[in-house]
Amino acid sequence: MRIITVSREFGSGGRELGKRLADILQINYYDREIITMLAEQSKLDEHYLESVMDNQTFRSFPVTYGRTFLSGQNQAVQLLVQQHNIIKAIAEKKQDFVIVGRSADVLLQEYHPFRLFVYAEMQDKQKRCRAYDKTNLSDKELQRKIRQIDKNRAECHAFVSDTRWGDKKGYQLCVNTSGMEIKQLAEVTAEFAKTYFRGCQA
Amino acid sequence: MRIITVSREFGSGGRELGKRLADILQINYYDREIITMLAEQSKLDEHYLESVMDNQTFRSFPVTYGRTFLSGQNQAVQLLVQQHNIIKAIAEKKQDFVIVGRSADVLLQEYHPFRLFVYAEMQDKQKRCRAYDKTNLSDKELQRKIRQIDKNRAECHAFVSDTRWGDKKGYQLCVNTSGMEIKQLAEVTAEFAKTYFRGCQA
Repeated sequence: MRIITVSREFGSGGRELGKRLADILQINYYDREIITMLAEQSKLDEHYLESVMDNQTFRSFPVTYGRTFLSGQNQAVQLLVQQHNIIKAIAEKKQDFVIVGRSADVLLQEYHPFRLFVYAEMQDKQKRCRAYDKTNLSDKELQRKIRQIDKNRAECHAFVSDTRWGDKKGYQLCVNTSGMEIKQLAEVTAEFAKTYFRGCQA
Repeated sequence: MRIITVSREFGSGGRELGKRLADILQINYYDREIITMLAEQSKLDEHYLESVMDNQTFRSFPVTYGRTFLSGQNQAVQLLVQQHNIIKAIAEKKQDFVIVGRSADVLLQEYHPFRLFVYAEMQDKQKRCRAYDKTNLSDKELQRKIRQIDKNRAECHAFVSDTRWGDKKGYQLCVNTSGMEIKQLAEVTAEFAKTYFRGCQA
């Protein structure tokens, strides 16, 4: 089975790269789909979940939401565990797929995924954020937002791994998208992944 | 002009990858060649120079060697500067090339090189070292040697850059060779580099 996990800095284009990889390799793609599944299971609102899992820290939540009453910290951890179980269940279907974020690189390590990390220079991440999302944030505020989201991703990662999020040791390939076209990057990264999977079979 | 700089952990196969990249792209390759040039200029023995530049720390040298008398620290720094000038002179020839190590990624940044970092898991680096070099070192001693060489590389890098040696920020691509065939890796890495250079021209 071929699994590609895409970890990425916010604004680096990692999500687009992941989607394109799935298209090129003609395999399933999981990103927001995980949140939809989690919403169904937890009976919580998708948008709320998304903000909890992606944008909030693990320290500041509303203590009640939907039909569940939990202290913020407990709820977050519980949702994280639930999300992990969803990801593991996807892998158990034994179909090839690309998955973006969500510590899948660590959770699915028994499947020897091709673990990709996507990053970029801050100025390029800002540019990408502004292109995709109309925002009135100043450069300084946007930089703070980018750093905060990545900090949260690192925190979620630390729940399941001793290796630091973004430390190249944890990945097969780390790609800097600055000055590169994501479309072309996807083509060559797909070749990289194929080479890796050939090696795993050998 | 297309320049590829290959920075690499000791034992990761980065040198072989660099050589193969040059062969695939049919461009010049610089590695030990730099030491030969430095030996000619400095009138110092090549083997001595190699051990100074690659294996020794910047703290422990013989104080006299060849025809030069210098304090160890001064001699090392002087040789480093001399080496830097050789590398810059190579770039001024305006021919495409691959260069391994020697902080070329930083020294040649005005030429927008494709900066590659090659790394691997410790057990694979040990295996590679043992395959290439008959050694009687114990695993522990070999690990210590590998770490020491990389530490020296990081120190040399710190002379010319604020970005830490091996920090992915400083590179376009970081490749983990563990479980991969260097020959196949070279093919896909060459495609990556071509994509980067096309982007630079655009």
